[in-house]
Amino acid sequence: MKPELSFIGNIETPYSTLKECPKNIQHDGPICQIKVYDEYREGLLGLVTGQTILILYWLGNTNKPVILRKTDNSNKTTGIFARRTPHRPNPIGVAMLPIHKIENGQITVRGLDCLNNTKLIDIKPAINNEADEIK
Amino acid sequence: MKPELSFIGNIETPYSTLKECPKNIQHDGPICQIKVYDEYREGLLGLVTGQTILILYWLGNTNKPVILRKTDNSNKTTGIFARRTPHRPNPIGVAMLPIHKIENGQITVRGLDCLNNTKLIDIKPAINNEADEIK
Repeated sequence: MKPELSFIGNIETPYSTLKECPKNIQHDGPICQIKVYDEYREGLLGLVTGQTILILYWLGNTNKPVILRKTDNSNKTTGIFARRTPHRPNPIGVAMLPIHKIENGQITVRGLDCLNNTKLIDIKPAINNEADEIK
Repeated sequence: MKPELSFIGNIETPYSTLKECPKNIQHDGPICQIKVYDEYREGLLGLVTGQTILILYWLGNTNKPVILRKTDNSNKTTGIFARRTPHRPNPIGVAMLPIHKIENGQITVRGLDCLNNTKLIDIKPAINNEADEIK
């Protein structure tokens, strides 16, 4: 049995095609909205503005991954795990960004690199010093 | 249809129970081996010692997530997305660590926080300045 994912929310960005998406996270990029579905909304309790979070999202609309590939501008061949292409065996994007604003089950950040309507998989604190972590 | 994941390798750590696992990544922690399955081995080409990578892995053996929870040492209630517990709607762990050694389809890093035999989901460069990224 393969492990399955459940989407927990939706991400709104200014990008409607992969060509428009920036190649990486841009800390001074445009505002993006992370909207957690109602049943998970309470899960945001405790996150605060300025706190750095890890955001995981499903890179939909991707192609079959190519394991070895020549890069476009050189003759160098690199493996898929040395590249950040969204066309991966498991197309999961990860961004580490500070919370710009948080209210009503919505988190605002700047500079995500994904398409509008990208599905959210997880949010967690990027650093956690709480001694009372559940394991 | 739910999005499915395929495991691409296996992670060896010194921890056989969740209680033994450190609560977070430890940069000076013990050696851990990341073994990519044979069919993905060429995908590591281009990664080098010292380079910082993002490692994604499936946190198996977890329980049903609790959305709101009082922390053990205080009366404060926090949401699941404000905690780093492995018991999450989508139990994916993320570590950002430098490559200690890389050879023969194996990457060695220090200080992962997961159980021995944790399944690998993805590896990608933590920072990528290549202008020739595939999008």
